[in-house]
Amino acid sequence: MIKTMIITMVGSTVIMASSLLNEAKDAGLVAIPADKQELMKLIDDKRNPITAQKTELGKMLYFDPRLSKSGLISCNTCHNLATGGDDGLAAAVGHKWRVNPHHLGSPTVYNAVFFDTQFWDGRAKDLEAQAQGPILAAPEMAATKEHVVSTVTSMPEYVQRFKKAYGKDVKITYKKIADTIGNFERTLVTPAPFDAYLNGKEDALTKAQKAGLKTFIDKGCATCHNGIALGGTMNMLGIMAEYKYAKVGDFKGDANGMVKVPTLRNITQTAPYFHNGQVKTLQEAIVEMGRIQLGVTINEKDAASIETFLHSLEGKRPEIVYPVLPIKTASTPAQNIN
Amino acid sequence: MIKTMIITMVGSTVIMASSLLNEAKDAGLVAIPADKQELMKLIDDKRNPITAQKTELGKMLYFDPRLSKSGLISCNTCHNLATGGDDGLAAAVGHKWRVNPHHLGSPTVYNAVFFDTQFWDGRAKDLEAQAQGPILAAPEMAATKEHVVSTVTSMPEYVQRFKKAYGKDVKITYKKIADTIGNFERTLVTPAPFDAYLNGKEDALTKAQKAGLKTFIDKGCATCHNGIALGGTMNMLGIMAEYKYAKVGDFKGDANGMVKVPTLRNITQTAPYFHNGQVKTLQEAIVEMGRIQLGVTINEKDAASIETFLHSLEGKRPEIVYPVLPIKTASTPAQNIN
Repeated sequence: MIKTMIITMVGSTVIMASSLLNEAKDAGLVAIPADKQELMKLIDDKRNPITAQKTELGKMLYFDPRLSKSGLISCNTCHNLATGGDDGLAAAVGHKWRVNPHHLGSPTVYNAVFFDTQFWDGRAKDLEAQAQGPILAAPEMAATKEHVVSTVTSMPEYVQRFKKAYGKDVKITYKKIADTIGNFERTLVTPAPFDAYLNGKEDALTKAQKAGLKTFIDKGCATCHNGIALGGTMNMLGIMAEYKYAKVGDFKGDANGMVKVPTLRNITQTAPYFHNGQVKTLQEAIVEMGRIQLGVTINEKDAASIETFLHSLEGKRPEIVYPVLPIKTASTPAQNIN
Repeated sequence: MIKTMIITMVGSTVIMASSLLNEAKDAGLVAIPADKQELMKLIDDKRNPITAQKTELGKMLYFDPRLSKSGLISCNTCHNLATGGDDGLAAAVGHKWRVNPHHLGSPTVYNAVFFDTQFWDGRAKDLEAQAQGPILAAPEMAATKEHVVSTVTSMPEYVQRFKKAYGKDVKITYKKIADTIGNFERTLVTPAPFDAYLNGKEDALTKAQKAGLKTFIDKGCATCHNGIALGGTMNMLGIMAEYKYAKVGDFKGDANGMVKVPTLRNITQTAPYFHNGQVKTLQEAIVEMGRIQLGVTINEKDAASIETFLHSLEGKRPEIVYPVLPIKTASTPAQNIN
């Protein structure tokens, strides 16, 4: 009863509104900074500083299907920047149409720079390390390091661009190629109305979205879905009860049974949900999360309210000019679809 | 001997140069107009006039993998605008990793607006008709008309954009969707140095490229590779001798055994060559063409010279901002990778 009253009042007075803002901050929810320099501090990495040259080159490599064994699959195939930064499938599909052997879906690359760790089992510490994985994975791009390095170095324009990005003595290694892709991925940040709200723009959220935020906090969702990514940390899946589709696929998390908490940014665009993509709607995902993580029953109305809030996390994508890739040469390795 | 002299002299005097230009025009080689209105007359179609709204919407649909059965394949998968407007494979690969049953490669979409007819067997009269094919073809996007129409109409942003493009009473049919994609494809034109040359910029080609153009004309290549596309018409393959890889795949051309002449624009970017992609290098393709189409032996030097000319057909791509696609809704049909 009291809860209902508060929800109704949220946004109706300045005091209540700013109190919600404080609650959100107290719950560990953090905005993408509006200030570009402040944002740059968060997304940049001293070991691989972001530069325009690297970002552009990384973008080209990200979209280049010739890095894959077949020549058909690029990073963007499964982490499609036109949709949710993912592939919208329950489990990833790659080389020779192989389904991910653990029945794992492709997580979004948008805002992944804010994750503590990468992959569902958190085995990569950053985007640069992550980028090394799928290119070589047999059910994904199925390439070898040699194929990737030979492909890139066979095209003079790529070599020139590496020199411009890293200096004329650059050694184009597999790691350097992945670093460059990671560099581009660091820039894939999508500020949303929720950020504007956290940054002080009181009317950036609708009344209903504020009510949803309140429900989100009250139910305890921010216990795991916090920080800038509203996720991106490792946590136990099924604290209070077993996930109802736990048996689909053999994924059991990392060595300690921990699973990466997905970001909620653009979550309305990345169905289906959970690591094995068994949950089709946000409504069902919210209810299931309440049951297995928080031990609470989230009724239909509250789930709808939370979902309304989640729409405020739909962010503005950076504008990406589709690259024109370098031309293959006689020394470019052949592609192989088998 | 005389031929060698002419080649050497080409470009060395204004008179010889303009004579080459006339030869090129006499051989039926036509420039992409530099004037935008003149170009628009050539690429536009009264039945489906190009507008900014249609082009943008068509671009979105072109890049949208959700039109396919699996949700993984878009028009751009096989006609990749980042590379040659094709997939760089000997034979196309589509849904469930099926190889084109006739072992046919994906022709480029760039400058396809200038083709007399579409597909290797010329069965579609224009891009709008062509676009209807691959979306439904089982080894390509494997969708049904119902899937495509339901997918598009399930997303309010698409519906809005169709209304803006065609008027508020628009009926979103499969044909209308393909028309819109075709509309976008009409704009995929790539003016090249060769066009600047034909349009009067004498130094747009290097001396070596001019020599190559002369060889190209003298050998008879422009007999089939003429018009704006330097190809795009139907012709007999193997007039003087059988194509050496004729037995790869069962493709025999149209009802009269005619095969579409590929465009030479951006041909340096669309290896491997011939309808069944069996020829890896341009050098080999040029020699083979001489043998089977013209009944002449093109020596290594002449082939290299022609190849040098072909580089002048590498065109400037239109800048394409990668689209942000509408969000799926509860009524968007499920994807099916099987």
